[in-house]
Amino acid sequence: MIIITQRTATEEQIEEIVAQLEDLGLAAQVSRGESRVIVGVIGPEELLREKPLASLPGVEAVVPLAKPYKLASADARGHASTVDICGVRIGGDAAVALISGPCSVEGREQMLSIARLVKDSGARILRGGAFKPRTSPYSFQGLREEGLRFLAEARNETGLPILTEIMDARDLPMIERYADCLQIGARNMQNFSLLKEVGRSHLPVLLKRGFSATHNELIMSAEYILNEGNENVLLCERGIRTFETGTRYTLDLSAVPILKSRTHLPVVVDPTHAVGLRAFIPQMSVAAVAAGADAIMLEVHESPETAKSDGQQALFPETLSKLLPRLRAVANAVGRDL
Amino acid sequence: MIIITQRTATEEQIEEIVAQLEDLGLAAQVSRGESRVIVGVIGPEELLREKPLASLPGVEAVVPLAKPYKLASADARGHASTVDICGVRIGGDAAVALISGPCSVEGREQMLSIARLVKDSGARILRGGAFKPRTSPYSFQGLREEGLRFLAEARNETGLPILTEIMDARDLPMIERYADCLQIGARNMQNFSLLKEVGRSHLPVLLKRGFSATHNELIMSAEYILNEGNENVLLCERGIRTFETGTRYTLDLSAVPILKSRTHLPVVVDPTHAVGLRAFIPQMSVAAVAAGADAIMLEVHESPETAKSDGQQALFPETLSKLLPRLRAVANAVGRDL
Amino acid sequence: MIIITQRTATEEQIEEIVAQLEDLGLAAQVSRGESRVIVGVIGPEELLREKPLASLPGVEAVVPLAKPYKLASADARGHASTVDICGVRIGGDAAVALISGPCSVEGREQMLSIARLVKDSGARILRGGAFKPRTSPYSFQGLREEGLRFLAEARNETGLPILTEIMDARDLPMIERYADCLQIGARNMQNFSLLKEVGRSHLPVLLKRGFSATHNELIMSAEYILNEGNENVLLCERGIRTFETGTRYTLDLSAVPILKSRTHLPVVVDPTHAVGLRAFIPQMSVAAVAAGADAIMLEVHESPETAKSDGQQALFPETLSKLLPRLRAVANAVGRDL
Amino acid sequence: MIIITQRTATEEQIEEIVAQLEDLGLAAQVSRGESRVIVGVIGPEELLREKPLASLPGVEAVVPLAKPYKLASADARGHASTVDICGVRIGGDAAVALISGPCSVEGREQMLSIARLVKDSGARILRGGAFKPRTSPYSFQGLREEGLRFLAEARNETGLPILTEIMDARDLPMIERYADCLQIGARNMQNFSLLKEVGRSHLPVLLKRGFSATHNELIMSAEYILNEGNENVLLCERGIRTFETGTRYTLDLSAVPILKSRTHLPVVVDPTHAVGLRAFIPQMSVAAVAAGADAIMLEVHESPETAKSDGQQALFPETLSKLLPRLRAVANAVGRDL
Repeated sequence: MIIITQRTATEEQIEEIVAQLEDLGLAAQVSRGESRVIVGVIGPEELLREKPLASLPGVEAVVPLAKPYKLASADARGHASTVDICGVRIGGDAAVALISGPCSVEGREQMLSIARLVKDSGARILRGGAFKPRTSPYSFQGLREEGLRFLAEARNETGLPILTEIMDARDLPMIERYADCLQIGARNMQNFSLLKEVGRSHLPVLLKRGFSATHNELIMSAEYILNEGNENVLLCERGIRTFETGTRYTLDLSAVPILKSRTHLPVVVDPTHAVGLRAFIPQMSVAAVAAGADAIMLEVHESPETAKSDGQQALFPETLSKLLPRLRAVANAVGRDL
Repeated sequence: MIIITQRTATEEQIEEIVAQLEDLGLAAQVSRGESRVIVGVIGPEELLREKPLASLPGVEAVVPLAKPYKLASADARGHASTVDICGVRIGGDAAVALISGPCSVEGREQMLSIARLVKDSGARILRGGAFKPRTSPYSFQGLREEGLRFLAEARNETGLPILTEIMDARDLPMIERYADCLQIGARNMQNFSLLKEVGRSHLPVLLKRGFSATHNELIMSAEYILNEGNENVLLCERGIRTFETGTRYTLDLSAVPILKSRTHLPVVVDPTHAVGLRAFIPQMSVAAVAAGADAIMLEVHESPETAKSDGQQALFPETLSKLLPRLRAVANAVGRDL
Repeated sequence: MIIITQRTATEEQIEEIVAQLEDLGLAAQVSRGESRVIVGVIGPEELLREKPLASLPGVEAVVPLAKPYKLASADARGHASTVDICGVRIGGDAAVALISGPCSVEGREQMLSIARLVKDSGARILRGGAFKPRTSPYSFQGLREEGLRFLAEARNETGLPILTEIMDARDLPMIERYADCLQIGARNMQNFSLLKEVGRSHLPVLLKRGFSATHNELIMSAEYILNEGNENVLLCERGIRTFETGTRYTLDLSAVPILKSRTHLPVVVDPTHAVGLRAFIPQMSVAAVAAGADAIMLEVHESPETAKSDGQQALFPETLSKLLPRLRAVANAVGRDL
Repeated sequence: MIIITQRTATEEQIEEIVAQLEDLGLAAQVSRGESRVIVGVIGPEELLREKPLASLPGVEAVVPLAKPYKLASADARGHASTVDICGVRIGGDAAVALISGPCSVEGREQMLSIARLVKDSGARILRGGAFKPRTSPYSFQGLREEGLRFLAEARNETGLPILTEIMDARDLPMIERYADCLQIGARNMQNFSLLKEVGRSHLPVLLKRGFSATHNELIMSAEYILNEGNENVLLCERGIRTFETGTRYTLDLSAVPILKSRTHLPVVVDPTHAVGLRAFIPQMSVAAVAAGADAIMLEVHESPETAKSDGQQALFPETLSKLLPRLRAVANAVGRDL
């Protein structure tokens, strides 16, 4: 950490800054420039975390040097991690995986039928929401445990592991009885109670980026999960909120190489929620694979015009099955399997 | 609701749209223009909520006409609501209220000392965090129940009602034993499980705007609370995330007249978290009162340089006490008491 | 400037950094920390402007310490500047000024009639656009020189100085024959050719903030004008583009105290373009005065439903005349005249 | 266009709306719903452009149905356009083109040397700035005509057509003597005087998206150029400004399929300025080709650490030459040449 003093800082103020650092067991290096003094802090920066040094008289700015995350850091393992979801490996050198399914579980027949279709299209993990975060309290909120049962039945029939969202820490024991991978939705990315709770689960967690969270805030939320002992975290880019209203959100594909350079965690891309318009999802899926995504998550629905949620962004089944060869060709072009 | 068809929509597609509407018990009015057809939907729009009409073949756009919220709507009561927090009334014609206190409860002495100071400065409600949402799992997370006890002690001594944040639905019974008003933080604005839970509490709820939530999304989150039966909701503008990095967030004061025109709920402004820089908080507090805020929430700390969280934005006690007369002068200039 | 090295920087790389600095005539102070080295640069930072030090091997980050602006800096004069527009003083201790008029000059009668009305409402400067920047080439583009003549006639009749926009450097000589103050619109805030040109004019310049420009970028654009010798620059906050679509732009009132702390230049607020909805403009005008604005610019139109541009945001004349006493009351409450 | 009335609109107000439409020679279709009336407008919407119908008493909202652009519209030609820059075809079925060169022309030797290198790496168009838009008036502003001469010399030697930025309409005759394609920079995207001027040039124009411009605003700026008679316009996505500070801007790759669906114009992607960090530019270039870009523009510099502008984002020459085969493999995977 570097402390930059104000031009008007007095000698007493600088001495006080140094004294405060030494009180904490840190060493201070004072460099005197033409118009101001710079204090370099030597020693573990964590000691300074609770200390609002920027409030000390004479301080203009405090520049942290250490990364705020440890367990998620690329340095922490030295190699890319692979997360195993019932035998489907994601990340590292594993093949790029397709995760697909409907937005919501709507019924038994629908779920079984889509599950078969998703499997036939080449997807390796089945997704479906039994608990739905909806902006309006009057919108469909999900089938809850009944939905989880339909998902589990679909897994039994197709062999695909299932991924489903958890919205409330109190539901964890129930969801753990059915699911193979938990999803934390964008709106809960900074629901720290929930993060801690899934951090104590034995299931892998797909953590979606909040739609206004920075890359580092996403990593810090992963750190909450890792810090509780759960080592199997997947980061998911799903679009950020910008001024542009032509798409539902703006898919930030640069997050893929950046997250992969800063952390060892696998990175999943969800083009469906980002773009929000069925017509442009295939191109963005292909681009996500090119950018280095470890998995692509796509919503599909047999009759989107009757879907209980997000119908206008779900792919038609035939689009999904035609998309797979293109995804594979691009994956191969950048040196990956799919 | 109006359905706008594509230029290329066929007669069969239009008939199908009308048929789907009639199936739901709605009437359809078809207007044929030069290049496209417009279908007006007559009847309760709620019937269409789960129907993704935009996915029907031939549909270009669906334009909702009804507001998505009901209970929060200005029409719902016909007059501005007043929320009573242990005798302190906020909203309607009530005097503008000052809510103040430290970011975190840090200890018994600190809390009692600040509480006295806050009372002497003219504040009418005491705030303090016992559960702290922090980006990093390694940052101070709050004193939890011990912090609530210190707050309650401060209330007993000063008579000021207390406002404190709830982060986890499971903590509600415990927090209800101490607090006079619950706060839902910005990061939990769309934690729908938590919203439903506080909707069943007897305590008023101050709901902070998510830092990337639109005005209407904030209102929809209030609707979740109201829909569970809790009528005492205060909306709180606390800054939105924009490209500007000169301030921590961008305080959106236009939210004040807009929220007050769309809903009957009182609107509170929190300049501290929005601006994030102590030097500019007084001007923004005064501007918030001029814009029509029903209450102003300000963080204060006796020695910000030792604060366990957010020290650099807490006001010095002497600034708070000097600010009150200016806030009152501006309130009077726009026809309000304070 | 401080250069922070990578953890992996070699001794040779550090020597090379120091050598490069010394080549430029700068002194380097090397501080060795636990895991990295910090190089403090002593001497005039301008020498480094063209030197992309961040590209040197071994460099992790370069932290500038000097402000990028000089002439606009608050330090440059030591006191707030006042700009004089034909006897109307704006900034410093001068009374808060009201600038008003139609969006576009639409005709002679309209202009004379509005000018009288604006004067009667208490405005001290008349605005009106003769050259209109419009998103669409098919929208009304302004009356050009004819519009300027109508403006000049309105000045002759009312005595109000006139403010009008310049969009093209080639129009300057012609506009200078009529106008008392030039306006650079938001879309031209970084049209550097135009900035240099008006920097050579004898007329004061009102420089609008680009709708996605940071506070510092606005100041840097003012620096372009000042650097050409024109000392009379007014900064104007007019709303920034954010994710919120409930208002046309988001009025960033925190820009007022921030710009006034960083520069000596007067700060004007234009609530009309920011909010874009007539109903909420009065509250935001009052809030702008409370935040410390030196002038308020408001669009007005006698029959907004026939306006050739931006009709839905123009105030009705009666709203303008009723607003003045409220603006004055708030100005007085914060210690200013109006 | 559809006019939606307020719930409280009176019969007289509705009659007045209809009368105003009929005055303009338009037909009105009145549909009466449960709680409000909808007026469909039949006839050419252009007649309404200058009419602020939203200001009429009783009107709640005006919903345009026609696209605001004509000449740029995909419908206008019925097929994707190809722009020819001295024999290099961009757009339609043409091979994806690589455009490369330094940010600024810095000298004769540098320019010739980079030009050879760029050619050897497989680029087909040479870029270089002789006029530089810089945030600070104290930064390097370009070599001006001398720079253009060096560019022309580089073209003579390599045969690569040259692309260079124009910042001032007055420079057009001079730049036309040297350049093969004009660039309008992001900061000038809504400099309407400049757009009209290049609209009268015989040279093709690469129009960069303003960093806060919507897709439609970019198309409307292209419409300005097309409307003056210049049919050779290329749209360029170069990153938008968002809250994320981990990259310089956020590259919006969804703009590629969206712009290509709305217009017939070729779409170029500039990952360099968007990402701003050398390490992540290759991945984003590959992703841009996968998303369907017609050309990729990349900055390169032989010794970025001495570059006069934007050194930290320029690729090293060896990175550029290694990138081409990967770009080609991905282009082939999505059915294109490169």
